[in-house]
Amino acid sequence: MICLVGFMGAGKSSALVELAAHGLKTVDADRLIEAEAGCPISVYFERQGEGAFRELEQRTILAALNTTGIDVVALGGGAVATPAIADALKDRQHTVVWLDVELDTAWRRVRAGKRPLAQSQNDFKALYDFRQPLYDAVADAVLPAVARRVWDRALGSVRALAALPAGTRMIWAASANGEYPVFVGNGLLDSQLFAGAGDVMPGKGDSYVFTDDVVGPLYANQLGSVKASVSIPPGESAKTISQAEKSLRGMAVLGVTRQDRMLALGGGVVGDLAGFCAHTYQRGIPVVQVPTTLVAQVDSAYGGKTGVDLPEGKNYVGAFHLPSAVIADVDTLATLSEAELTAGMAEVMKTALLAGGDLWKQVLELQPGQIVTRGDLIYACARYKCRIVAADERDTGIRAVLNLGHTVGHAIESATGYKRYRHGEAVALGLLAALRLSDAPKLRESVRNWNELHGLPVQLDPNIDIDQVIDVIQFDKKKTSRGVGFVLLSRPGEPVIDRLVPDDRVRYAVEELIQ
Amino acid sequence: MICLVGFMGAGKSSALVELAAHGLKTVDADRLIEAEAGCPISVYFERQGEGAFRELEQRTILAALNTTGIDVVALGGGAVATPAIADALKDRQHTVVWLDVELDTAWRRVRAGKRPLAQSQNDFKALYDFRQPLYDAVADAVLPAVARRVWDRALGSVRALAALPAGTRMIWAASANGEYPVFVGNGLLDSQLFAGAGDVMPGKGDSYVFTDDVVGPLYANQLGSVKASVSIPPGESAKTISQAEKSLRGMAVLGVTRQDRMLALGGGVVGDLAGFCAHTYQRGIPVVQVPTTLVAQVDSAYGGKTGVDLPEGKNYVGAFHLPSAVIADVDTLATLSEAELTAGMAEVMKTALLAGGDLWKQVLELQPGQIVTRGDLIYACARYKCRIVAADERDTGIRAVLNLGHTVGHAIESATGYKRYRHGEAVALGLLAALRLSDAPKLRESVRNWNELHGLPVQLDPNIDIDQVIDVIQFDKKKTSRGVGFVLLSRPGEPVIDRLVPDDRVRYAVEELIQ
Repeated sequence: MICLVGFMGAGKSSALVELAAHGLKTVDADRLIEAEAGCPISVYFERQGEGAFRELEQRTILAALNTTGIDVVALGGGAVATPAIADALKDRQHTVVWLDVELDTAWRRVRAGKRPLAQSQNDFKALYDFRQPLYDAVADAVLPAVARRVWDRALGSVRALAALPAGTRMIWAASANGEYPVFVGNGLLDSQLFAGAGDVMPGKGDSYVFTDDVVGPLYANQLGSVKASVSIPPGESAKTISQAEKSLRGMAVLGVTRQDRMLALGGGVVGDLAGFCAHTYQRGIPVVQVPTTLVAQVDSAYGGKTGVDLPEGKNYVGAFHLPSAVIADVDTLATLSEAELTAGMAEVMKTALLAGGDLWKQVLELQPGQIVTRGDLIYACARYKCRIVAADERDTGIRAVLNLGHTVGHAIESATGYKRYRHGEAVALGLLAALRLSDAPKLRESVRNWNELHGLPVQLDPNIDIDQVIDVIQFDKKKTSRGVGFVLLSRPGEPVIDRLVPDDRVRYAVEELIQ
Repeated sequence: MICLVGFMGAGKSSALVELAAHGLKTVDADRLIEAEAGCPISVYFERQGEGAFRELEQRTILAALNTTGIDVVALGGGAVATPAIADALKDRQHTVVWLDVELDTAWRRVRAGKRPLAQSQNDFKALYDFRQPLYDAVADAVLPAVARRVWDRALGSVRALAALPAGTRMIWAASANGEYPVFVGNGLLDSQLFAGAGDVMPGKGDSYVFTDDVVGPLYANQLGSVKASVSIPPGESAKTISQAEKSLRGMAVLGVTRQDRMLALGGGVVGDLAGFCAHTYQRGIPVVQVPTTLVAQVDSAYGGKTGVDLPEGKNYVGAFHLPSAVIADVDTLATLSEAELTAGMAEVMKTALLAGGDLWKQVLELQPGQIVTRGDLIYACARYKCRIVAADERDTGIRAVLNLGHTVGHAIESATGYKRYRHGEAVALGLLAALRLSDAPKLRESVRNWNELHGLPVQLDPNIDIDQVIDVIQFDKKKTSRGVGFVLLSRPGEPVIDRLVPDDRVRYAVEELIQ
């Protein structure tokens, strides 16, 4: 049974109409409750109080969840706060879909109505903030409430969940230029996703794997029926145009057509290069991202940025090419080298800082090595990234928050020829600089300690020429007409973008790193 | 003064509202006429007959065209049929904008109303067909009637016409993924377009020229204020990934940013490569196409297909990247070699066959060399291409008509290693094969004679291995799941796509070429 949950104004009623049009037997729990109550919910609520209403709601919903023949049930916005209901939703027979609505949209949609809980905007916000984690806790899938007729496209992916390992979660990533499902879980390689479940695989043709020489031997045989593979050497040095040419020629020799799909199996380099090759091969074929590294699972696999490096600059050549799906199997993290895992932790910290809230608290408490068993955190990071990208796919506005720590981080990488530090290590240092610039010394101290605990650098190699790092920062700033400054953050969850910072303060924040 | 013309249902009234919102003083000629008549036009028409109405219309419109202080006047749908009005519109002070509406759209929009000339669908179509050439004859600019709020984007380009050489025409090319102006005329290099007229140049940054070593020295200094140039060797052999890499690195070394624009100055190869580099440089910067060859001006500069070749196949790597503008200066054709001009004639013939009507008649009467003075025909070809692309930008449906002659043409090129024939020459032969497959022997004969007259091949080199040509055709067919067959055409203007043809007939049509 598909169970729809979500706040007032998330569009559960419209979803029921859409799903009924797909031939599903749907019920609205509120209508069942009203039939029991013999009056509208608002009347019952007012006469009997919230306690009596919740009791009636619980009884009605638990009964509905155990009724055979119902395909979809929509729950009232507050139902998930009742523990017995939340527990019942965990039954594997139920696929819980959270229709996630932004606060503003919800308020705009319901303020005109008579809902008892939508009378004051302040109370409305408080209730919203209280309930979001409750929805999150029960949801197997999350769909943005603003995508029009989303079920035409997302129903297959929602249904696929029933055939996937327990605990798998799906995010419907939607943005101006396209939509795709993101699956995060354990045991997703060799799962039904690769065997046609939910029609998640795009195109009518064959699957071809795009991987590297390290990851391919480990996992390429776990992607269902695959026609052939293209493999690149591991590491950032493969992200060149001439490697792209080799791979594209490899695809041509294999006879890949526009009906086929590429499965990008690997880390950020594979994802970037495979996405770029898929974008340009015969003017575009679909790519499914199957990230196997921490960096890729929490960050780079989402959003469609693809690219290769030029000697003149990293990611100087590329394109936006949305994946047709992302399948993140957390189990693959177990085979990562410690160095790779460590580098990925910097992106986890960055995301935690940006997202704040629960994610921040949990990441702060992480012990080294624990991340590989924490699919919940991988999921939370993926979800954060998808939300930001959805709001701003073309990287012109708030997506810029994702650059937290990257201005200085990138300058460190560039000034050291991309050889001394991994990307994640440079970002870890960049985060410290950004927090200094944010006037957040205590937060900086927390992150510094965390970095140290997780094996990330907290000090810049004193042999590095600070002036060169500063030069790159200046050059970066000049590149954009808006004179984009820094992403700053004085408290977790509250990033601000485009902050111009005086040069001497930038220098101080960088110099501090070698002390 | 901007004068709006177009058929019933083209949206002239809505255009007036939009233009008034831009602060322009607008008048609707029909309202002026009704004021004179003292009654609604439909009533006057019925009482006094069409003759009296046209007389009143002419008097009113001629007066309006001479009234100072009016910025925009919308003319009734039939006004252009009155010679005195058509003549008055030729005054350089008037920029005539044709709001072009598809027949179906027009009928859908007006059939419910009471217009005297929109009572029978057959009469409506006859009137539509009669008037289209009249609008075309007076129009300085043509805007598709379906683009929403098009004046927000197109007004600058329309206004720019007043600052451009007499006879310049503008097509607003609109499709699902974007819109851009196409200017066709003489003397457009060194014109105000490159000096900021109408804000046609995209981006706030600088202009960089992307050209080849032959065209650059001739014209690169006529593109306004240019920061620097990237130049490639001339010819198809430059359309490689490694040349793209060199050019992209060149752009990086020059410091091109995402605020800048590339001006692609040259033929099809420059356009393809510059478009590809612009698409991928820092994930995309704008490109303005400035085509200087016949092939590019009538065909390849429009529609956003960009790409490079692999040894495994032509155009195997590429992307869709719409130009921000196309500026086709017909004067540049004067410096083309005879061979290049001849090859371009094949695309002119192809377009004439597809478009039919007046274009077909005029192209059939062309004498060798005349095309370089026939900006009207270049314009007509550009317009045809833009209309087809608008209907089907992603090349999934009717855009396929543009492949007329290309299935066999491409096979001839491929089987001869792209060395024996220029693309246009191969297409010329392909057209003959396509007309044979279309069972159009007389039309084939006309085209054969025309090809001969214009120096295009009419016979395939007998040393060529026919089997190899047939093999490539078979391979092409296999590449698509739809089993796309041929574009056939039994009469000019009436192409049909996706026609499967028995193998023995294909062989016959190709073998006939060496007889």
